[in-house]
Amino acid sequence: MRYEHLADQPCSITRPLVLLGDRWTLLLVKQCFAGVHRFTDLRTSLGIPRTRLVDRLARLVEHDILSRTPDGHYRLTRKGHDLYPVLQALRDWGDAHMAPDGPPVHYLHEGCGGAAHVHLTCDRCGHDLTARDVTVAAGPSAVRR
Amino acid sequence: MRYEHLADQPCSITRPLVLLGDRWTLLLVKQCFAGVHRFTDLRTSLGIPRTRLVDRLARLVEHDILSRTPDGHYRLTRKGHDLYPVLQALRDWGDAHMAPDGPPVHYLHEGCGGAAHVHLTCDRCGHDLTARDVTVAAGPSAVRR
Repeated sequence: MRYEHLADQPCSITRPLVLLGDRWTLLLVKQCFAGVHRFTDLRTSLGIPRTRLVDRLARLVEHDILSRTPDGHYRLTRKGHDLYPVLQALRDWGDAHMAPDGPPVHYLHEGCGGAAHVHLTCDRCGHDLTARDVTVAAGPSAVRR
Repeated sequence: MRYEHLADQPCSITRPLVLLGDRWTLLLVKQCFAGVHRFTDLRTSLGIPRTRLVDRLARLVEHDILSRTPDGHYRLTRKGHDLYPVLQALRDWGDAHMAPDGPPVHYLHEGCGGAAHVHLTCDRCGHDLTARDVTVAAGPSAVRR
């Protein structure tokens, strides 16, 4: 099985990971959220090799996660914006497990100043869920075996 | 700047990405959540090269995300379990943007059957937040410049 063929699996965790799971891609998305939009600034802020950056940006544009503006800036599309909860979930985990001296940055609701955090919740009853509370069922595009 | 040095940056998104951001690591974590715990089963289910798998599992054990049981199974630790929202955030994004025929799998609250979804919310007022609603402030381990 070739790595890319994993993306054909009927799994909505695997498909994004095959696209986004490499050293640089989500770091580039993170930089765009942080306001770093130019090729040169992306390159120097991350220390990413130029050819790698060209390749990754092209792939992000191809998959409609970033768009390149006429003045050469890379901007998050709607689809790219939708990755924010992924980065925030990583951030919650990083704050919990990789920040022994406390969070380097607080992410706050601009409206009221409260802390922003990711929760897995039940749409019906509103409970916070962990993996132990979750069960799976075949969806419309499940593969019948 | 070497890639690994990015992990020294005062950013709780970057640190996890340097540890978890490669082709295989989060796929391995996902497989463990799905009940795939043995070296051979991990290898064949993902098609990951043996040496790569040895390396990635060692790193996950070193960082206390997996633990290896006496019978050779790899189990999620508490820290590993805490990655579930990251995978679920990826899954919500995959369902929204990489599942044109609908979700292959529904993730449901075992207690009531409702759909499980990730939300970025404000701890104080409870509002659902997007990137546009969030502002940042220096935390206790911020670097003063």
